[in-house]
Amino acid sequence: MVSDDEAMSRAIALAARGLGTTSPNPVVGCVLLSAEGEVVGEGFHAYAGGPHAEIVALAQAGERARGGTAVVTLEPCNHTGRTGPCARALINAGIVRVVIAVDDPTPVAAGGAATLREAGVRVETGVRRAEVEEGNVAWLTAVRRGRPYVTWKYAATLDGRSAAADGTSQWITSPPARADVHKLRSSVDAIVAGVGTIIADDPQLTVRDLRDGSLAIKQPWRVVVDSSGRTPVTARIRDQAAPTWIATAAEVGAGPDGRVDLAALLGELYARGVRAVLLEGGPTLAGGFLAAGLVDKVVGYIAPKMLGAGQPSLVGAGVTTIAEAIELDLTDIARVGPDLRFTASLRAKEA
Amino acid sequence: MVSDDEAMSRAIALAARGLGTTSPNPVVGCVLLSAEGEVVGEGFHAYAGGPHAEIVALAQAGERARGGTAVVTLEPCNHTGRTGPCARALINAGIVRVVIAVDDPTPVAAGGAATLREAGVRVETGVRRAEVEEGNVAWLTAVRRGRPYVTWKYAATLDGRSAAADGTSQWITSPPARADVHKLRSSVDAIVAGVGTIIADDPQLTVRDLRDGSLAIKQPWRVVVDSSGRTPVTARIRDQAAPTWIATAAEVGAGPDGRVDLAALLGELYARGVRAVLLEGGPTLAGGFLAAGLVDKVVGYIAPKMLGAGQPSLVGAGVTTIAEAIELDLTDIARVGPDLRFTASLRAKEA
Repeated sequence: MVSDDEAMSRAIALAARGLGTTSPNPVVGCVLLSAEGEVVGEGFHAYAGGPHAEIVALAQAGERARGGTAVVTLEPCNHTGRTGPCARALINAGIVRVVIAVDDPTPVAAGGAATLREAGVRVETGVRRAEVEEGNVAWLTAVRRGRPYVTWKYAATLDGRSAAADGTSQWITSPPARADVHKLRSSVDAIVAGVGTIIADDPQLTVRDLRDGSLAIKQPWRVVVDSSGRTPVTARIRDQAAPTWIATAAEVGAGPDGRVDLAALLGELYARGVRAVLLEGGPTLAGGFLAAGLVDKVVGYIAPKMLGAGQPSLVGAGVTTIAEAIELDLTDIARVGPDLRFTASLRAKEA
Repeated sequence: MVSDDEAMSRAIALAARGLGTTSPNPVVGCVLLSAEGEVVGEGFHAYAGGPHAEIVALAQAGERARGGTAVVTLEPCNHTGRTGPCARALINAGIVRVVIAVDDPTPVAAGGAATLREAGVRVETGVRRAEVEEGNVAWLTAVRRGRPYVTWKYAATLDGRSAAADGTSQWITSPPARADVHKLRSSVDAIVAGVGTIIADDPQLTVRDLRDGSLAIKQPWRVVVDSSGRTPVTARIRDQAAPTWIATAAEVGAGPDGRVDLAALLGELYARGVRAVLLEGGPTLAGGFLAAGLVDKVVGYIAPKMLGAGQPSLVGAGVTTIAEAIELDLTDIARVGPDLRFTASLRAKEA
């Protein structure tokens, strides 16, 4: 006899396996319990266009699902997209009770719980909700805001410098920290950098195994914020290793300063299916995103070094006095090799 | 029956009680074991001019020390200063064996172990040496280098700013972080700040209870690095709350740039009995100390805020390219209220 709580725990672990490959869909996990309360099916959503978690679990359970309970991290969908509606599939399989952690916030997919109830299925929601929200934070935030969830990643010294006085910056952080960045990249749909960084460092912005340089099978989009189209034709980012978009002000639209309108850029990325973005600098582009309130999370790799001169890690975030400082909450502090990694979420400003 | 190791552990704990009040002396703890191996006396050195740890323990043990073992964190002294030589006192009390963690590096006090051996006492050294070195690191480093142990403390935002664009900086860090700074101050003999900080912030630089503002009984020296004597006559640092030294280039001597020679300043403080210094800013003075290789430890209070403009936490440390970055080792990372506190030691440069 498996409890709802235990089953949801397992569903959360299953859901997490899909992180980084399901966009524009969320990660979802599902555990089916028989009428006797034993696990008879498990599934998770692995990639957009592939079967939903419920369908995978139902296929596994077969007739044993009849009279049973479905424990699922997200409200079962109600619409026919690339796959049929899961709510209907659960009803047809004879499921009599559905336990949900989080309601589906998308207008087109929502309504699954109502459909289930109308068919006489008992529906309970909110089980381990906070945990599931956390595991799906990028997708849920993106869908609720209508723009991708933005994580700003940067590397700096203890005194907040991203390059020395002569412009050198390779390498501020250690090999373990750089490997960690590639893991971070593999969890998003697009990597965004400014044209200044492209010109200065000529990065490839791909997900690689740093031991042998081999490319990961799945590569996020590479997006260059390049207001006036200055990305060199020889830039490495123009290679074939990953899809690339050089976003100019002419294409995206410009703000009052003539530069790429960052909210419009994110809107366009959302329309293209991007739900999670990793912003990788430089300091001025990060300042622009922060000033516009378009950053959700910050991951900083801080090397135990001091420079006392050189490029600051952040420039032009629109703050002039201490009372207006951008406030964050530290959610994680870890050591990565000799370096310190902090994770912080932007604190919502009081209206 | 108490083992040497257990007794040394206890002696280390006793020694730590003296931290912050023994300068120019080290902290020392002593445990006396009877011939049967039972604890018969304990002592620590509490303040300069007061009895040494061994003398306190011997007074407690009386005749029970005869035939016993003294377990002491630092080699017993061999000289008559404000108190008589401890080596002699141990011999006179009939101690037959002495267990020492760390040898005394001071020329005038050393030789205690030799005196003990000449009197037929068995002497063992090195028990829990690393732990005792760590507990006495400020004093040991100071004595070995002939200058005070320097800890640079600063507060900054995640992006390395110590003030906003308009100069405001109160308060970057939280009340718990500021209370922690007062604990740090209480552990040193002198607090050093630049005249720029005095003019900009008019700090009192005392050890206070932040709940009611009351002053601690023991106050470290307040030292202003003030090359050309610009400290305002009305500055709070000139009040009677603690002894103060306005150190000018005329008094201390000047470097090639006409500013106070920082090595000479530390030499003078050492001569005055200062063993541990807390350097409290600003960024340019910290840069001067770091450039001269005169910083041993850094304690940074990092608030989860971003500014993107304003005063950097460190300026002019003499580094122009990334390969010359000042390297540190992170020895501790902690949360203090909402803030992050890191402790790092300067990595010795390879010759």
